[in-house]
Amino acid sequence: MKIAMLGSGFIGRFYADSLQGYRSRDKIVSIYSRKEESAKKFAKDYDVTFPTSNMEAAINRPEVEVVCIALPNNLHEDAVMLCCKHKKAIVSTKPLGRNAAEAKRMLEAVEKTGVFNGYLEDLVYTPKFLKAHESVKKGALGRILWAKSRETHPGPHSDWFWDIEQAGGGAILDLGCHCVEIARSYIGKDIRPIEVMCWADTQVKPIDAEDHAIGLVKYENGAIGQFEVSWTFRGGMDLRDEVMGTEGTIWINNFMRTGFEMFTTGKGADYVAEKAETNTGWLFPVGDELNELGYNHMFMDMFNAMEKGIPPKETFYDGYIVNCVLDAAYQSAKTKRWEPVNLDIWRGRVGVSKDSHLQEYDADHYLVKEEVTHYGAKKVILKNKKTGKILEKVI
Amino acid sequence: MKIAMLGSGFIGRFYADSLQGYRSRDKIVSIYSRKEESAKKFAKDYDVTFPTSNMEAAINRPEVEVVCIALPNNLHEDAVMLCCKHKKAIVSTKPLGRNAAEAKRMLEAVEKTGVFNGYLEDLVYTPKFLKAHESVKKGALGRILWAKSRETHPGPHSDWFWDIEQAGGGAILDLGCHCVEIARSYIGKDIRPIEVMCWADTQVKPIDAEDHAIGLVKYENGAIGQFEVSWTFRGGMDLRDEVMGTEGTIWINNFMRTGFEMFTTGKGADYVAEKAETNTGWLFPVGDELNELGYNHMFMDMFNAMEKGIPPKETFYDGYIVNCVLDAAYQSAKTKRWEPVNLDIWRGRVGVSKDSHLQEYDADHYLVKEEVTHYGAKKVILKNKKTGKILEKVI
Amino acid sequence: MKIAMLGSGFIGRFYADSLQGYRSRDKIVSIYSRKEESAKKFAKDYDVTFPTSNMEAAINRPEVEVVCIALPNNLHEDAVMLCCKHKKAIVSTKPLGRNAAEAKRMLEAVEKTGVFNGYLEDLVYTPKFLKAHESVKKGALGRILWAKSRETHPGPHSDWFWDIEQAGGGAILDLGCHCVEIARSYIGKDIRPIEVMCWADTQVKPIDAEDHAIGLVKYENGAIGQFEVSWTFRGGMDLRDEVMGTEGTIWINNFMRTGFEMFTTGKGADYVAEKAETNTGWLFPVGDELNELGYNHMFMDMFNAMEKGIPPKETFYDGYIVNCVLDAAYQSAKTKRWEPVNLDIWRGRVGVSKDSHLQEYDADHYLVKEEVTHYGAKKVILKNKKTGKILEKVI
Amino acid sequence: MKIAMLGSGFIGRFYADSLQGYRSRDKIVSIYSRKEESAKKFAKDYDVTFPTSNMEAAINRPEVEVVCIALPNNLHEDAVMLCCKHKKAIVSTKPLGRNAAEAKRMLEAVEKTGVFNGYLEDLVYTPKFLKAHESVKKGALGRILWAKSRETHPGPHSDWFWDIEQAGGGAILDLGCHCVEIARSYIGKDIRPIEVMCWADTQVKPIDAEDHAIGLVKYENGAIGQFEVSWTFRGGMDLRDEVMGTEGTIWINNFMRTGFEMFTTGKGADYVAEKAETNTGWLFPVGDELNELGYNHMFMDMFNAMEKGIPPKETFYDGYIVNCVLDAAYQSAKTKRWEPVNLDIWRGRVGVSKDSHLQEYDADHYLVKEEVTHYGAKKVILKNKKTGKILEKVI
Repeated sequence: MKIAMLGSGFIGRFYADSLQGYRSRDKIVSIYSRKEESAKKFAKDYDVTFPTSNMEAAINRPEVEVVCIALPNNLHEDAVMLCCKHKKAIVSTKPLGRNAAEAKRMLEAVEKTGVFNGYLEDLVYTPKFLKAHESVKKGALGRILWAKSRETHPGPHSDWFWDIEQAGGGAILDLGCHCVEIARSYIGKDIRPIEVMCWADTQVKPIDAEDHAIGLVKYENGAIGQFEVSWTFRGGMDLRDEVMGTEGTIWINNFMRTGFEMFTTGKGADYVAEKAETNTGWLFPVGDELNELGYNHMFMDMFNAMEKGIPPKETFYDGYIVNCVLDAAYQSAKTKRWEPVNLDIWRGRVGVSKDSHLQEYDADHYLVKEEVTHYGAKKVILKNKKTGKILEKVI
Repeated sequence: MKIAMLGSGFIGRFYADSLQGYRSRDKIVSIYSRKEESAKKFAKDYDVTFPTSNMEAAINRPEVEVVCIALPNNLHEDAVMLCCKHKKAIVSTKPLGRNAAEAKRMLEAVEKTGVFNGYLEDLVYTPKFLKAHESVKKGALGRILWAKSRETHPGPHSDWFWDIEQAGGGAILDLGCHCVEIARSYIGKDIRPIEVMCWADTQVKPIDAEDHAIGLVKYENGAIGQFEVSWTFRGGMDLRDEVMGTEGTIWINNFMRTGFEMFTTGKGADYVAEKAETNTGWLFPVGDELNELGYNHMFMDMFNAMEKGIPPKETFYDGYIVNCVLDAAYQSAKTKRWEPVNLDIWRGRVGVSKDSHLQEYDADHYLVKEEVTHYGAKKVILKNKKTGKILEKVI
Repeated sequence: MKIAMLGSGFIGRFYADSLQGYRSRDKIVSIYSRKEESAKKFAKDYDVTFPTSNMEAAINRPEVEVVCIALPNNLHEDAVMLCCKHKKAIVSTKPLGRNAAEAKRMLEAVEKTGVFNGYLEDLVYTPKFLKAHESVKKGALGRILWAKSRETHPGPHSDWFWDIEQAGGGAILDLGCHCVEIARSYIGKDIRPIEVMCWADTQVKPIDAEDHAIGLVKYENGAIGQFEVSWTFRGGMDLRDEVMGTEGTIWINNFMRTGFEMFTTGKGADYVAEKAETNTGWLFPVGDELNELGYNHMFMDMFNAMEKGIPPKETFYDGYIVNCVLDAAYQSAKTKRWEPVNLDIWRGRVGVSKDSHLQEYDADHYLVKEEVTHYGAKKVILKNKKTGKILEKVI
Repeated sequence: MKIAMLGSGFIGRFYADSLQGYRSRDKIVSIYSRKEESAKKFAKDYDVTFPTSNMEAAINRPEVEVVCIALPNNLHEDAVMLCCKHKKAIVSTKPLGRNAAEAKRMLEAVEKTGVFNGYLEDLVYTPKFLKAHESVKKGALGRILWAKSRETHPGPHSDWFWDIEQAGGGAILDLGCHCVEIARSYIGKDIRPIEVMCWADTQVKPIDAEDHAIGLVKYENGAIGQFEVSWTFRGGMDLRDEVMGTEGTIWINNFMRTGFEMFTTGKGADYVAEKAETNTGWLFPVGDELNELGYNHMFMDMFNAMEKGIPPKETFYDGYIVNCVLDAAYQSAKTKRWEPVNLDIWRGRVGVSKDSHLQEYDADHYLVKEEVTHYGAKKVILKNKKTGKILEKVI
């Protein structure tokens, strides 16, 4: 696959490392950066033939088969429109838009034009997520009750994130977009998110956007998604998911505790640890960030889908749904009440009712719980269907 | 110390194991149970001279120095009033009341009578909590931003918990009382809890009370407490705390991952594992539950305080505050908005303002973040105080 | 129990904290230290009426019921002999002697005199060990094949440990005594240790004794004990046990990863972390060292046994066996071959033969392994009893 | 790269998944299996054009650029000789030979012929190892003192492993080859392994080879490598490395505890967990085995090296060294003493002396240890260079 890369910053370089990694047959052929010298530096580092500070020029080259958007949030829409103009396939970084309105316009544009569109939500492509999700789909956890995703760290590296105009928001938009899509994937992407309750505050940083937020997303079947996001966390990057089902539990730690622990006094003179808050004492490195964070599996899905002429797992439609949920979260943080998720476009199931909590025991009773007593006997706690009385019965 | 024990069930036995454990000089001298034979069984097991099914008789014995209430929630108030009548010191299990009104009456009764009163919130006495709390007080985490406590398991063992009349509520009341006091202790017990937002649902069990809930508690200084409680969790007992501060982080796992891991095929014929959902495969036992769950340090604090004539760390006042917070949580779950915490009695600080998030960098700028760039240079991200502009500066 | 404490150093204070902790009815009534002022300091800190620098004076007081030896290794024998002279019960710290000859003389002295003798091997009294050991005895792990104990840290605090004359050895004697008794307990204290192979070296410290050693102890039933000890470990105290059985596995981490994790920038001005190599970054505190390291359960067993007139779980006999194993380890480190464990006194089983590895499958075959194939079929790998041929069979 | 694959079993399929995974430009073009139908099945599954049961035919095809040997141990030498005959580049699975003699003949053959040769030791290519090793090389751990690698599981899947004639040995050869090369890599591949001490036994399985072994490998600079291998472990696959240096520690867990935890009741009817001893209760899956076990990075290094015309990180020479160490281990298990490693071919450093353990403090003293006392004072423990006396000094 021949790729035009838009953006030469932190995330663009991460993408490039993944795209051209291993023994890949994919290649970046043009690179756009707002700054000429950044484009040239990137071109040199990744062996790209055409660096430019003209976005359209990077896109509109005959050999370009797909455009990869790795730009600040406020530039996504312009980039998408240019790709549509030149009928280029698009894969775009997250969040899709700064809000649902932007996302909707992008979604409509790509669908009208008919170009391939992929939403680069890498965290539903991590190896752990993929395996966990497969187990969930096979029923290993029963009915999903709650899915939480947490992403917190000490704040992003680039200045534009901290500027609410360019970023469109704070930790909710930057990190919550991951968390919402992770929870939604566990609960079922065909289940409609109904309403959102969110707390957000600016606790530590002198910025206009929120640096810490917690939100709950209610789905039509009664399941709950939860996100915990912050730019004020100390200790590294905390990236964890937890899922509860009627038959099981999943806990995933993507970054801080993955089976690699190192203590160092730091005496090794020129030793510098990877991006972390400290490079002495106990450190918890990640072996292969590109793979652990899902980039490899994500691009594989995207390009395999393109070659087969089918949509990838994550499309602009998913990006749009996420933006709608986040809009409701921002609204709720202001109104201090649950706010509905407004979905002008919804392609999942409709009219889903809440899953029942009434487990039949016999004609007259529901089952509350089975227990083994201290004496080794089995007892059941039951509820009488008519009277509502709770009773115990040794069996 | 000579103790009258009220209640011979699960929690009464746990207390007795702790009270009479190690080389203790404390002794249970009377035991009340609603059922005569339960009282007798308990008396035999713990070498108690006076078993009875008459509550007042158990309390009103000359040798009794302190009464330990280990009864269902709906019986706490009666027991407290009897103790006051006979001027006996009291330590009561959690939650104090089924609601703030009950708790307030109990608080007022003991204070009017002048008897010693202790609130048996064991989870702020666990060895890990004690050490973590000391670190927090010494400033190791800086200003506390968020304190979460999670307690989830597959549901209580006794029938009365599942009956909303006797219990007064579901998982919020049973488990949330722990979580609220843990978070409050980290944030500061003199900081007023202002308002609560709570989601609660009955997702799995055929009961009238909630079996799953998540709540946020806002404090006057801007800190956030969070509780996650459930009777629907699969996999054992999940008992974890997380605290974020401006200078650090604490993670505590009290039960599931404490450095003890066992795999067994279960072939050992008569082997039965402790209370857990399974007794084969990978198991994660707790070495010494009494100590890990705080019982030992809790009773030590209670009785040492009694002997010194001072209040213990946790009194009925604390139990009352917790009930007020939980009342607001129940209210919020109904109204779907943040609800104020109504505190008729408040003895902490008043008029605390929200902590500032504006960290001075120089006369014209606030500091957003310090970073080391890829090239080893130090850069700062700043915000102009007047224009609000975000800028980067390499230093 | 009224206790005479011999030794006011690090370990004596640990013991005192445990002995007089919680709501204990035990009391230290005399304290001996080689330095007068140390005795006085200890007496003040622990409310002891009789401080002295005369060892015999501390022992030979009418109210003393038991003497607790917490002295450097080279003083154990003298202390024991004085206790025998005055017919006082003894509990002694580990190792019992600097070698088997010393240990044997002490064992013979207490048995001849008939005084109570307890060997303070705290690590077989940790809550985790107690629960793990109970599971092993019940058969949860089947036949024990291998038991490893590892104790490594950056070296002891007091000078006498580093002096081979006073200490009698290095890391093997200081730490290996724990490891040997732990492994022996899992394998079975009635199973005779036969021979030892040990590597030892002085890799880092400018001392005459070894600062790092690894040893294997073969038992008569074919099981293997393993110890890994060092004074050169960086990162804190590594205290782990691993046990393999035919039906299961146990992993215990007593110190470094027990469910308590803290990150701190160290900005909290007066914050000082507990004995660790660092007080910033990620720290892993232990909640209640006294309990986690077994001191509480150890003294409970000792004194309960004394009161009942029975021997405790660990006696001087056990201390003697451990010294014999360690003597063989030192010998092996020199000769570079397996060395026999010379046991003049052995009270366990004799003539135990090696457990068989031949699991019957049918009249003609032994079972090597059962497997589920990729196709879901069950297959067995068998060995023909006569020909020795390995074959697969789908069943 | 066009590849001929020899062997269609478990490991051959693993290799194929890696070779043709992601967006790879490499392709398997011929497949040899001893059984015709296995070759055909493999050809179909991996889209290979030329299946055959004639080994030479698979190798000797014009389009084949490199031959990948994934055969039972006893067939490696024949395969290598055929590759040499046809001047094909070779990458061979581990261990290289059943013993050093075989390995030496293979090494000499490829070097005489001049064909590219790679030794497929995947576990020094895992992402965690690569990052850890880089840190070690940069000095983060100081001087390496000890490197242990442990690989234990319940035994291999295929019958030939259990047949000592085909396999050439048991757990030592099968698993120890990994462990030896891991430890050797941490200590330094240019440091000569001098001698080996090994315990081995057949504790559980009715086979002629060892099913459990522990070995120590001494290097010329005084560092110690350790391997722990077994086919009798219960609970899954235990794959851990530990490294101690004068300035730090590394702990790596490659399989059992990598941040992915799942509990399931197993009620999800058709759910089958991956290769593990159980599919209910707590499970610890690995997200992406191919990557976590190093296959991807290994083949990337191999083929990149081929294209650049340089040797890969691991060559037949390394396989030969490993076989020499294992031969000494087998010898030691019989003689019960340390056995020398006989290296007819050695290309590393010679005459390396043991690293000194004498750290200078001042003209008269060596430094034993620095400590912070309870009173916050700094003290040093010193050793007098002449008298050997140990002393403390507060500074």
